[in-house]
Amino acid sequence: VESTNRQITRLMESEDWKSVSEIMSTSHVSDIAEFLSKLGKPERLLVFRELSPTLLAEVFSYLEIHQQYELLESLNDKEVKNLLADMAPDDRIGLLEDLPSESAQRVIKLLSAEDLAESQSLLNYPESSAGRLMTPDYFTVKANWTVGYALETIRKKGHDRETVSTVYVTENRKLVGVVTLHQLVLDDPKTSVRDIMRSPAISVSALADQEAVADVMGRYDLSVTPVVNTEGALVGIITADDIFEASKEETTEDFQKGAAVSPLKTSVKTASPLRLYLNRIFWLLALMGVYLISGNIMSRFEHIISEAVPLVFFLPLLIDSAGNAGSQSATLMVRALGIGDVKLKDWAFVFFRELGLSLTMGLAMGLVVVGIGAVNSGIKIAMIVGISMVLNVVITCLIGVLIPFALERLKLDPASASSPLVTSVADIVGVLIYFSIASWFLRA
Amino acid sequence: VESTNRQITRLMESEDWKSVSEIMSTSHVSDIAEFLSKLGKPERLLVFRELSPTLLAEVFSYLEIHQQYELLESLNDKEVKNLLADMAPDDRIGLLEDLPSESAQRVIKLLSAEDLAESQSLLNYPESSAGRLMTPDYFTVKANWTVGYALETIRKKGHDRETVSTVYVTENRKLVGVVTLHQLVLDDPKTSVRDIMRSPAISVSALADQEAVADVMGRYDLSVTPVVNTEGALVGIITADDIFEASKEETTEDFQKGAAVSPLKTSVKTASPLRLYLNRIFWLLALMGVYLISGNIMSRFEHIISEAVPLVFFLPLLIDSAGNAGSQSATLMVRALGIGDVKLKDWAFVFFRELGLSLTMGLAMGLVVVGIGAVNSGIKIAMIVGISMVLNVVITCLIGVLIPFALERLKLDPASASSPLVTSVADIVGVLIYFSIASWFLRA
Repeated sequence: VESTNRQITRLMESEDWKSVSEIMSTSHVSDIAEFLSKLGKPERLLVFRELSPTLLAEVFSYLEIHQQYELLESLNDKEVKNLLADMAPDDRIGLLEDLPSESAQRVIKLLSAEDLAESQSLLNYPESSAGRLMTPDYFTVKANWTVGYALETIRKKGHDRETVSTVYVTENRKLVGVVTLHQLVLDDPKTSVRDIMRSPAISVSALADQEAVADVMGRYDLSVTPVVNTEGALVGIITADDIFEASKEETTEDFQKGAAVSPLKTSVKTASPLRLYLNRIFWLLALMGVYLISGNIMSRFEHIISEAVPLVFFLPLLIDSAGNAGSQSATLMVRALGIGDVKLKDWAFVFFRELGLSLTMGLAMGLVVVGIGAVNSGIKIAMIVGISMVLNVVITCLIGVLIPFALERLKLDPASASSPLVTSVADIVGVLIYFSIASWFLRA
Repeated sequence: VESTNRQITRLMESEDWKSVSEIMSTSHVSDIAEFLSKLGKPERLLVFRELSPTLLAEVFSYLEIHQQYELLESLNDKEVKNLLADMAPDDRIGLLEDLPSESAQRVIKLLSAEDLAESQSLLNYPESSAGRLMTPDYFTVKANWTVGYALETIRKKGHDRETVSTVYVTENRKLVGVVTLHQLVLDDPKTSVRDIMRSPAISVSALADQEAVADVMGRYDLSVTPVVNTEGALVGIITADDIFEASKEETTEDFQKGAAVSPLKTSVKTASPLRLYLNRIFWLLALMGVYLISGNIMSRFEHIISEAVPLVFFLPLLIDSAGNAGSQSATLMVRALGIGDVKLKDWAFVFFRELGLSLTMGLAMGLVVVGIGAVNSGIKIAMIVGISMVLNVVITCLIGVLIPFALERLKLDPASASSPLVTSVADIVGVLIYFSIASWFLRA
């Protein structure tokens, strides 16, 4: 790939566009797209126009959305029309979803009547549902056909389908079974398809969320899954690489939510500084509001703090340690709920296990601070810090476990239970407990 | 699935094991395994023994490791021997990797000479490398064969291979191309395989890390990828579902590391409380060591704190807000490095972008606290808190960006740059800056 890139760059310097496109036609579309993405805008347009018509649409689908947008703006209506006609239906949907609305309007106008109807029906499905990810490029045979006739039909009509390694068996449009090309090739041509098909076929609903689709495919080791509508009719297929990509994007969003960053929906590397700024500052400022509450609580204990300043030295240790324990709980739950390892109904089991766990962790951590506190600041402060540590760790861990479950119960995304959110809520409780215990001990 | 489960449970109550196994033989192996995993230990063994020999190994591969271990302990040598012989090579490797050593020794003794040699050669590859994940169940044809002869051979010998929808073309054991079953079926039987194969075939090295394999498969939309050794000879294939599973596990570990939990390597739901305790308490105690340093720094400023107790009220706001900004940076970088969105060489670009970003974020946050501080605690404290906020946010964000890059550079896992680690390191800097500025202002 590296040496080809250098060769192409040389040819481009001598403006030999024909040779450039010739060399590229032997590369994988993904590599061509990567090469294009490294070019300046005018060169990208020149090289893109030199690609063979069969490659154009495929390479285009591999480009990032901002490059697709730029190219569409530079191409004339006829070129856009041809490009759209050659694109896979699922890629067309992705494009329509991501383009700015003005550009999307132009694309819609340039779609053929048939492609427009198809796109509209796919866009009716909810965002990140199976219906949005599926492609209608599958091959079907009838259950009463013979294996020989099925193979014959695939030979004649299978050329333009994305996937024929798995063939779907239908009766009155309903999906009744599935058979691999492999089986059709290996079996006796006179056998009936019904006798060799796997039935019922594992399928997903077009309304199913992409995470549920990923679950089903992982669970049954499928590289392609059929998608059915509410009547059980086959309406599309989803391939493992599409769901893999979608699931990777969703996981990246979960990481971002977990650190209190509003999902960027784009590569961190190419994201504009303004987008990064806005998606980060929002949560930072919102959380500052929560810390003001802990600050306010502390100000009510001003007399206690003045009397025993060393209490303050243990404040970061106390609230941050409990915060860490709480983010452990929250993160473990968010991920476990996300991948279906733990379900909503498991909340009581998880809650009571966490109660036991946090108590033992809190005791261990409490003992350590009692020891250190006793040496540095006397037994009284050591006791205050130690008891607060146990209580704080337990309460913070339970908050960490409950927030994700509560969000899931309210049909919100548990991933919003970010570590910063959990720790800031826990700070309020922590400060209140710490200084209340201190008042009580120091007055006593 | 639910109603089948109920039916099976009823049959089990009447101890009708034959009917149980009959019903199960029509279910998907994944569902059978799930049903088995819900049974008590003795019932599981009974039902397992009733499964047909062809199902046994497949169902076994779907069970969780502790259930596999239990079953192996209960089966006699002959049963284990048969079970092992029927397992797929990659599943056998997974088992050997995860079993306690005594049990693994027994398994090794019961392997056939051929399977033993195969397992040993696979175990020579590094952990989480392509070599560990691959299976040797692929089908090869020679480049000089005709399409007709290739199909004929597949018909004769393809029955026991996991994947024949993609067929690999070799010459002197070297991988020279790839052809889909689809193409072989559709093309003229007299054509030479060389003329229709895609060449060179995209492949991965057996030594490649699983993340790199996932990258290649995602990039080129592959559902199966061939694996080659250092001489370019084909040694195995990896299917998308296996890499999907492996990548999901690695992502879960990244989430856990990000919250300072040592990777559990098992389901959160079934993890033993002791395992959870140990994997969490380690980091909690280690981080307490860091907080002791910030506490120690604060104790050196005892006189300043006694003079201006309200400084303390802003402490959680200040260090936690900066900590949140820093964990945003760290998490964005850890994930971007993990999925290859950002590379090691991008560090300078990312660093200077972060410098600009953190400065603007810090200024916004600083202005907010100056406003609030001025109203509540006077202009002097407001200035101290505001200036500290700007400096702390900038420094913490830069630490958050640099730690993941430093870990990647040292060939350690960037995911270890957990939010708790970044925030605790930032705490030390934060406390030092805050009280130094306070000393300077209050003395002035």
